[in-house]
Amino acid sequence: MKHARYLYRGRVRNGRVEDGMLVDESGLRLAMDEVEAWLPPVIPNKMIGVALNFADHAEELGLAMPEEPVLFIKPNSSLIGHRSPVEYPRGIRHMHYEAELVAVIGRPGRNIRREEALDYVLGYTIANDVTVRDFVGNMYRPPIRAKGQDTFGPMGPFLVDKEDVPDPGNLAIRTYVNGRLRQEGHTSDMIFSVEDLIAFISSFMTLEPGDMIWTGTPKGISPVEPGDVMRVEIEGIGVLENPVVLSPHTNVPTEKQEV
Amino acid sequence: MKHARYLYRGRVRNGRVEDGMLVDESGLRLAMDEVEAWLPPVIPNKMIGVALNFADHAEELGLAMPEEPVLFIKPNSSLIGHRSPVEYPRGIRHMHYEAELVAVIGRPGRNIRREEALDYVLGYTIANDVTVRDFVGNMYRPPIRAKGQDTFGPMGPFLVDKEDVPDPGNLAIRTYVNGRLRQEGHTSDMIFSVEDLIAFISSFMTLEPGDMIWTGTPKGISPVEPGDVMRVEIEGIGVLENPVVLSPHTNVPTEKQEV
Repeated sequence: MKHARYLYRGRVRNGRVEDGMLVDESGLRLAMDEVEAWLPPVIPNKMIGVALNFADHAEELGLAMPEEPVLFIKPNSSLIGHRSPVEYPRGIRHMHYEAELVAVIGRPGRNIRREEALDYVLGYTIANDVTVRDFVGNMYRPPIRAKGQDTFGPMGPFLVDKEDVPDPGNLAIRTYVNGRLRQEGHTSDMIFSVEDLIAFISSFMTLEPGDMIWTGTPKGISPVEPGDVMRVEIEGIGVLENPVVLSPHTNVPTEKQEV
Repeated sequence: MKHARYLYRGRVRNGRVEDGMLVDESGLRLAMDEVEAWLPPVIPNKMIGVALNFADHAEELGLAMPEEPVLFIKPNSSLIGHRSPVEYPRGIRHMHYEAELVAVIGRPGRNIRREEALDYVLGYTIANDVTVRDFVGNMYRPPIRAKGQDTFGPMGPFLVDKEDVPDPGNLAIRTYVNGRLRQEGHTSDMIFSVEDLIAFISSFMTLEPGDMIWTGTPKGISPVEPGDVMRVEIEGIGVLENPVVLSPHTNVPTEKQEV
């Protein structure tokens, strides 16, 4: 089953997909194009990202393959839904998409064994871990400004029940920009699988319902600009599409702020 | 006014301090020692930490003074209240306290000007940014395992209204371990003031009610061990005390997890 959250007549609806239609909790059936706005399919608790989880992507960045998962936290305030615009800050030079499979946690766990890890998963969705590469230059720095900005977390459109994803380690990932294929990878090439990541993270931190693990992006990042449309596809999970628009905000702190 | 959240007869109470007593929303008056458990005084939205925000602390770590704020995100699941135990993971070598002033955001803002920054603050509290230094060795790594573990975020006991803190840049900070002074600093020595941090962060990210900025720790970190009691004092804000206990969990991933 696929689940979605969306606005219709100004109210948030929690729906599921049946025969290509959306059916909300009241039983109201809508065609996909009647949705007023798509919301992220899960209300987030915390979101944990994994950097450099594909060997070919680490290589394209000129970085060594990590020996254990390199984690960061993506702020919930960065989330937007399918079709909503990603804002390109004025004054930056390199914005990249990063297509990622997201595992959504369904029940609390600590010290979860690798063999039982998928029992803690509610389902899967798609995210685009939008990154301003300008701010990753200094690798001492956790990627808050690079990845944490408002609109830098497109997600959705669907949460797909784990029962419908027999093997999260066997899914093709593709990103298109303006219809042209730019990124192509496969979850079988992850250095740390979904099971590895759940075991590792829960070895020091309780995983809770609504937590999400963004499992990293494969090789093939490239710049996008205002006017571009990013389209991320993950086999069996769906298609997440977001345009890039010029932000009203600049990202270059002014003299006045003295930072 | 000082505000607190605490358990009494198993229910969460939201109280304020009057004449040294706690008065909850029902009017029930309690002495401080009648509280069953202290909770963090604010339900968190997101929490943003600042590394190396005191020149003398950067120096004691052998690191250069940053040119702009070095941010990270502290997960909400790390929070505990006054008096609750911090769990010392088995298998680690260096756990440190880090005394910090926390600014709590009260209303939403983006691109906030430095001159108006304090208008967005609801109040202040105290936190102890507990850190396992073992996991900070590789500075490429955001400090998720180092600072994000369950119980690594003691906070409280009080939220102090900003009206009662005329200048957050003029407060003494002290940490005692087992009654002995170990850390002593002053918020006037911050590299980036509360106003600077609000202006910087909101230049790329919306600040929302319940967001918190952990403003960094001064010089004087040192190891603690199970059995120790950490006591953080900030002038005009209060005293936050937490014991260290041995965790039932180990932090050394097993062979089995293959990470």
